[in-house]
Amino acid sequence: MARVHSEIYFFGGNIAEGRANLRELLGGKGANLAEMAALKLPVPPGFTISTRVCTYYYDHPGSDPYPAGLRQGVAKSLKRIEKLVGRQFGDAHNPLLVSVRSGARVSMPGMMDTVLNLGLNDQTVQGLAEVSKSPRFAWDSYRRFCQMYGSVVLRLKPENPHDADPFEEVIEQKKRRKGVSQDLDLDVDDLKELVEEFRGLIARRSGRELPQDPQEQLWGAIGAVFGSWRNERAIVYRKINGIPEEWGTAVTVQSMVFGNLGPDCATGVAFTRDPATGEKGIYGEFLANAQGEDVVAGVRTPNQISLRAGRRWAERHGVAEQERRRRFPTLEESFPAVYRELVKIGERLEKHFRDMQDIEFTIEGGRLYALQTRGGKRSAEAAIRIAVEMVGERLIDRRAALLRVEPTQLEQLLHPRIDPGAKKEVLARGLPASPGAATGEVVFSAEEALAVAGSEHPTILVRVETSPEDIHGMQVAKGVLTARGGMTSHAAVVARGMGKCCVVGCNDLIIDAAAGSLSVNGRAFRRGDYLTLDGSTGEVIAGKVPTVEPTMSAMFKKFMSWADRERRLGVRANADTPHDAKVAREFGAEGIGLCRTEHMFFGEGRIDALRETILAENEQQRAAALARLAPFQREDFVEILRAMKGLPVTIRLLDPPLHEFLPKTDGEIRELADKIGVSYERLKQVSESMFEFNPMLGLRGSRLGITQPDIYKTQVRAIFEAALTLRGQGVQTAPEIMLPLIGERKEFAVLAEEIRQTAREVSDKNKVRLKYTIGTMIEVPRACIEAGEIAQLAEFFSFGTNDLTQMCYGISRDDAGRFLKVYIERGIYPHDPFAQLDAQGVGGLMKIAIERGRKTNKNLKIGVCGEHGGDPESVKLCHRLGLDYVSCSPYRVPVACLAAAQAAIEERRSAGFKDV
Amino acid sequence: MARVHSEIYFFGGNIAEGRANLRELLGGKGANLAEMAALKLPVPPGFTISTRVCTYYYDHPGSDPYPAGLRQGVAKSLKRIEKLVGRQFGDAHNPLLVSVRSGARVSMPGMMDTVLNLGLNDQTVQGLAEVSKSPRFAWDSYRRFCQMYGSVVLRLKPENPHDADPFEEVIEQKKRRKGVSQDLDLDVDDLKELVEEFRGLIARRSGRELPQDPQEQLWGAIGAVFGSWRNERAIVYRKINGIPEEWGTAVTVQSMVFGNLGPDCATGVAFTRDPATGEKGIYGEFLANAQGEDVVAGVRTPNQISLRAGRRWAERHGVAEQERRRRFPTLEESFPAVYRELVKIGERLEKHFRDMQDIEFTIEGGRLYALQTRGGKRSAEAAIRIAVEMVGERLIDRRAALLRVEPTQLEQLLHPRIDPGAKKEVLARGLPASPGAATGEVVFSAEEALAVAGSEHPTILVRVETSPEDIHGMQVAKGVLTARGGMTSHAAVVARGMGKCCVVGCNDLIIDAAAGSLSVNGRAFRRGDYLTLDGSTGEVIAGKVPTVEPTMSAMFKKFMSWADRERRLGVRANADTPHDAKVAREFGAEGIGLCRTEHMFFGEGRIDALRETILAENEQQRAAALARLAPFQREDFVEILRAMKGLPVTIRLLDPPLHEFLPKTDGEIRELADKIGVSYERLKQVSESMFEFNPMLGLRGSRLGITQPDIYKTQVRAIFEAALTLRGQGVQTAPEIMLPLIGERKEFAVLAEEIRQTAREVSDKNKVRLKYTIGTMIEVPRACIEAGEIAQLAEFFSFGTNDLTQMCYGISRDDAGRFLKVYIERGIYPHDPFAQLDAQGVGGLMKIAIERGRKTNKNLKIGVCGEHGGDPESVKLCHRLGLDYVSCSPYRVPVACLAAAQAAIEERRSAGFKDV
Repeated sequence: MARVHSEIYFFGGNIAEGRANLRELLGGKGANLAEMAALKLPVPPGFTISTRVCTYYYDHPGSDPYPAGLRQGVAKSLKRIEKLVGRQFGDAHNPLLVSVRSGARVSMPGMMDTVLNLGLNDQTVQGLAEVSKSPRFAWDSYRRFCQMYGSVVLRLKPENPHDADPFEEVIEQKKRRKGVSQDLDLDVDDLKELVEEFRGLIARRSGRELPQDPQEQLWGAIGAVFGSWRNERAIVYRKINGIPEEWGTAVTVQSMVFGNLGPDCATGVAFTRDPATGEKGIYGEFLANAQGEDVVAGVRTPNQISLRAGRRWAERHGVAEQERRRRFPTLEESFPAVYRELVKIGERLEKHFRDMQDIEFTIEGGRLYALQTRGGKRSAEAAIRIAVEMVGERLIDRRAALLRVEPTQLEQLLHPRIDPGAKKEVLARGLPASPGAATGEVVFSAEEALAVAGSEHPTILVRVETSPEDIHGMQVAKGVLTARGGMTSHAAVVARGMGKCCVVGCNDLIIDAAAGSLSVNGRAFRRGDYLTLDGSTGEVIAGKVPTVEPTMSAMFKKFMSWADRERRLGVRANADTPHDAKVAREFGAEGIGLCRTEHMFFGEGRIDALRETILAENEQQRAAALARLAPFQREDFVEILRAMKGLPVTIRLLDPPLHEFLPKTDGEIRELADKIGVSYERLKQVSESMFEFNPMLGLRGSRLGITQPDIYKTQVRAIFEAALTLRGQGVQTAPEIMLPLIGERKEFAVLAEEIRQTAREVSDKNKVRLKYTIGTMIEVPRACIEAGEIAQLAEFFSFGTNDLTQMCYGISRDDAGRFLKVYIERGIYPHDPFAQLDAQGVGGLMKIAIERGRKTNKNLKIGVCGEHGGDPESVKLCHRLGLDYVSCSPYRVPVACLAAAQAAIEERRSAGFKDV
Repeated sequence: MARVHSEIYFFGGNIAEGRANLRELLGGKGANLAEMAALKLPVPPGFTISTRVCTYYYDHPGSDPYPAGLRQGVAKSLKRIEKLVGRQFGDAHNPLLVSVRSGARVSMPGMMDTVLNLGLNDQTVQGLAEVSKSPRFAWDSYRRFCQMYGSVVLRLKPENPHDADPFEEVIEQKKRRKGVSQDLDLDVDDLKELVEEFRGLIARRSGRELPQDPQEQLWGAIGAVFGSWRNERAIVYRKINGIPEEWGTAVTVQSMVFGNLGPDCATGVAFTRDPATGEKGIYGEFLANAQGEDVVAGVRTPNQISLRAGRRWAERHGVAEQERRRRFPTLEESFPAVYRELVKIGERLEKHFRDMQDIEFTIEGGRLYALQTRGGKRSAEAAIRIAVEMVGERLIDRRAALLRVEPTQLEQLLHPRIDPGAKKEVLARGLPASPGAATGEVVFSAEEALAVAGSEHPTILVRVETSPEDIHGMQVAKGVLTARGGMTSHAAVVARGMGKCCVVGCNDLIIDAAAGSLSVNGRAFRRGDYLTLDGSTGEVIAGKVPTVEPTMSAMFKKFMSWADRERRLGVRANADTPHDAKVAREFGAEGIGLCRTEHMFFGEGRIDALRETILAENEQQRAAALARLAPFQREDFVEILRAMKGLPVTIRLLDPPLHEFLPKTDGEIRELADKIGVSYERLKQVSESMFEFNPMLGLRGSRLGITQPDIYKTQVRAIFEAALTLRGQGVQTAPEIMLPLIGERKEFAVLAEEIRQTAREVSDKNKVRLKYTIGTMIEVPRACIEAGEIAQLAEFFSFGTNDLTQMCYGISRDDAGRFLKVYIERGIYPHDPFAQLDAQGVGGLMKIAIERGRKTNKNLKIGVCGEHGGDPESVKLCHRLGLDYVSCSPYRVPVACLAAAQAAIEERRSAGFKDV
């Protein structure tokens, strides 16, 4: 059939004049509908008016705003729809209803207007009532149409910006008068009255009547959609998002279908494979004689689509086969022809998109309509099974399979999970800081956690926020819950490193640690009561909930081996303890990218020795205190290096400000003073003298090394002595000594020289050569700018992207809670830059550092050791930036491996390689 | 005369084989001595062995380390010296003594070795005693030689690194035994004994005798100097400073002269113009029969060189002409021929260097020796007078004249100064934060300052550190003194802005504000006692000291007009109040580059309204509180804009975190709660909830605008209404609205749209068009990286170099005191980056921002408004970076103008233009 107008693209009835690649002309929505029609899917017919008409519309204000022949073209297209659907637009008995929607080249959610149920008037509403056999449905649709048309086309807005929508106001009054609270409680007569009241309101406020002529309705709606391109919020949105004004919007007019017009109608959702297990075969739910809203509202229990699934469902719910057949017949049973068509459509779509599909469908008058298809959401297990099996079916190759699994999903497989079938009472939701599930008794301090751990009861450590002194408590707890802090708060970072379930920033907690009580949204818990955390969703759940233990399946291992073959980026782990190091190796880490030495200073016998170092009044006292720390450190290094068996281990010298190791409150100061035999006054005075306004930007990192060289010297000596000990035992070691917070070449030069001096001393004394390298964190912006200078001396760079993000943005992550949420909600930041690397700003600094560093030192090894190393998008950015490796918490190593493989594949593809 | 060896460069006797441009071969010292000799100045003769010999020396270890013929060449050169000086090396009656010094291409202060008085032995010391007629001088010289030779050539070091120098140890023992404390108290016999003891020590410790043969001494010293190139501290120094190992050092051997060998000897310093006033004519002091040390020791009062100056001196000191002639004869009188020669030398040197010279000279046996010449230090007045008069004398042109004045000196002329002739007891020294001099009664709080101000007594406000609440106290005080803080602390920044004398970071202060007392290095002061501050030197002085008021001379104005003609960079002022704005215009500012609006929120009736805004429990309360602030702001903007009469005024919207406006201590909270009728608990809870770990990186700047738009809206409305008011009075305005802390284009887009919205509201209401621009501070590193994006929307950039430096380095200036000093002392940072812009790091970020910003917006106006805008080196960097303007405190405007002119001239020169 010939096209009716050059700017109108028809779809439906096995014809599609457009395609997915015509987004610029058809907008996203119009292009996708055309593609479905081109696949000969039974989509409800319709047509799209191109964005060029939008441009024409704005170029011809005042006169006829549409190009020649468009009106006739629309009329002809409407006739084509009527013919396909078998209903007439404006027909009093069997009316065709259409939707009129906007669609720009890129999605601008909520910015432009839509009108649904168009074609309803005082006559056609009767017809709809008849064919649907539901006057309530017909009048509710008419009511909605009046409301939409009134506000979208006739522009009825609240008189004051703070007032409610005038139509909603009328509905509220009606419900108040009737003494009901739900829209559903309004009956047909109420709805009829509402339509009258709406029409009165429109006439009164706009001075115009709601048009009864469907043609007038249609052109009013088309004009309104084009007009909405330049409404104020759309203009602001485009300005903020850099979308050109000249793009314009397309308008799609599509026939509406209803799944609730009788027993030969239905609506449902079908997956081409089981989204929970990945098992092949159609899977899904439907409701006969219902519309989509009913499924969502959950008033009726939906039925299964396939007989096999239906039987399984009945078995699980203890429903006898006979009863099942009667009360819960499957689509396969009640609509066998439609079922066969749906299976065929599913197969076609899987072949076309080469992926498991999630299909929305409606059956109207026994006829199946596909309303939408998209790649189906799936569990981690299903994702891996589907990917691996599709390779077996030769639907996709291994590279495509690797792209099919969301890397973050893998974490689900490595941690216990809440049993998906379990009932749970969600009390509140915090930030999902570290995945997994944990059930345990509430405790309010590290000491309590340690005490209860002795009794072998599981515990959940609940704190306003955690500090380094809580680490031992965190270690013994099953899960950690905090009221404050973000995704990179102390609790979050430490818990992820431990692979421990953690929920942070749960603002609804009111904690009274002294009283041993906790209140969450009105529910009270006492010390010893049970709570459950879901670290993957952030849910805080009352009581005990059963959890499922993880297993590493053969399929998982096969899948990961494919990933390892593809990726170019190395993957290491951040590990501070011998235990972490062992876990890291098990998960496939190729080394340790960050061993934070500060954690070695906590624990019995250590923290006090460090405090004595800080408080020493003369060189002798200080040297003695440091000497007491030396064996602990040596021992830790021996075990960590041993666990990594010759793989590289990047050891960062002490980084945090020393005041973090001193007590803060008066009580703690008094207690410590007694314990270590220093006067309260001196301890308090030292503590106060070390106060910093902005500790993030204070005396820490290499500044400690410059101002108090003996601490670094002790650490470095312990590293070398540990390497020697292991050499004596025949174990290879590859320590990489890393200086934190370097911003200037000379600073690196001074400290590197001191490290080499210590190495010479240890070498000379033991008459052996030591193998080690010296490098630096790149975490202050100046280090990026001066990277060329620093790389002349450094053997490796490791981006500390947490601090680099803080300083690049000028945002303290500890304080960001106050405004970061607003920034993300308003779309000013596309995501939390502490969770996902900021490609422009921080990435821009990294690019400069990499270019300049490699220019002066072509052997420079470059990695990332910030928390971002376990975030897939960030890993991909690191790949594109040409880094040598990323380092992340042990439990995220598989995530990083898969993301790195995906990055390599995406790079192949953008270079023109085609994988299937 | 032919050269004796290709690697030996002789100088002296009106001959110079080298020149200043041979630094690479002769080292800095050797090259300069050659240049003086080439000018036919009577320099003591000597010769330099080139750096190539140093390379040879290290290439030939073990064998003879010197190239063929070098030994003979040295011997011949020594003969040439002997002939010119009339003394023989090693002669028992009239011995020639020489110095042996190192000299590298660049100065490496204190890194390499020097031997003086070489040629002394048991015989020649007798000869020296005879010719000098001072056995003590001869033996003291011999004693020093033994000591120097022992440690430099024979490498006698302390046995333990912490021990004292072994020679000094011997001297100390000697003094203890004799019961004296000064070296000067040792007599000839003591010195003879010391020589014996030193020689014993050398023999015992090195196993070698101190050589008596001067030739052996000489070659020992030459070898030691070459050897010192590779001593450990020199190697480390070069590594840190990036000096290549292969450069090597030169060795200079020069005859020594003595001004204390008899009445026909003398030593002194002469300037070619008066360094205090700039008056033309030789000016200086000398001592007959003395050596340089005597002048330094101040034991004898030196005499004037010219008769004119001698008479003036006598007059000032009330010495009768006859007595003067007898007791204080001038050089003109006692050495008339030498005086004439010195005048001639002065004139020659001025012509050669085209600048006022400072000449060190010695007269030995009636013969004049120039030991050194250099550009003379001079006062600000003298600098300007000399520069302007030299232009009149056609010695230099105007551009050269502009280069002759140190821009920072100009500040001296704009502030009161301590009377140069006044006696003063300096108690302590802090950082010279804001120049000028102030005398006043000590007060310890803003309230006391205000109270005493009522009584019209001048005050000095003494605080541990200042905060915004002290501003009114600072305004009424004559000077401000703090115990803590650096050059960019609150006190320093605010005081500079006010042009108020200020000394900060004076660690020696122990302040007990409650008791109203102050202790400085053991001296106690109470409230009301007088103190004097010198803000140009950082001196804290006891009691009252007379000060001199500044005057802007005609010569100053002429000089500044030359500068204005040369400079390309615009110069604006940072001004927050109408008064500041007026001062800024008087000093020649071409606009206001930074008007900080936060200061408008302090003061009676304002701060409490702002606090109520913060504490408001609902929208109404909040709106009411903001409404009370509006008229104050409007009034301030009217007066500031009026003062600038149509010149651009960049107004920064509120920047500091709001908690800075709330009281901190419990007492203050209680007081405020009572005052504004809010409960103590609520005030405390709000205050605590606003706590930030790193306020520098917290909720401030544009983040306030995003999260609390009403505050910015109130400010913006006040600006526009002020502009309208002035328009009604026929006054032009050019407000530039500046958003602080922008790091992302969308952030700017949202806030700029809100400003435009307010402008539209004010425009529509008043039916006029408003003229304004919107721009942003560039102060977070991300803004530099994203400058191309931001510049698409911003009309101007203004670098906030204070914050940019903090975030680029990752250093909080409030906390930097703990380590910055160490970094600068150890040469890790060449200077305080908060005082002088860091050209590499911060400058590197600025360069990126400028390139990217101008690329997307070629009309982008770019300036600097950090404190660096008043630092000459930073101004020059801004010129080189191609900025449009700098903005600094009003009192530094002339400084910036001159620095900008110098930058333009330096640029001409490096482009090949030659000015005389």
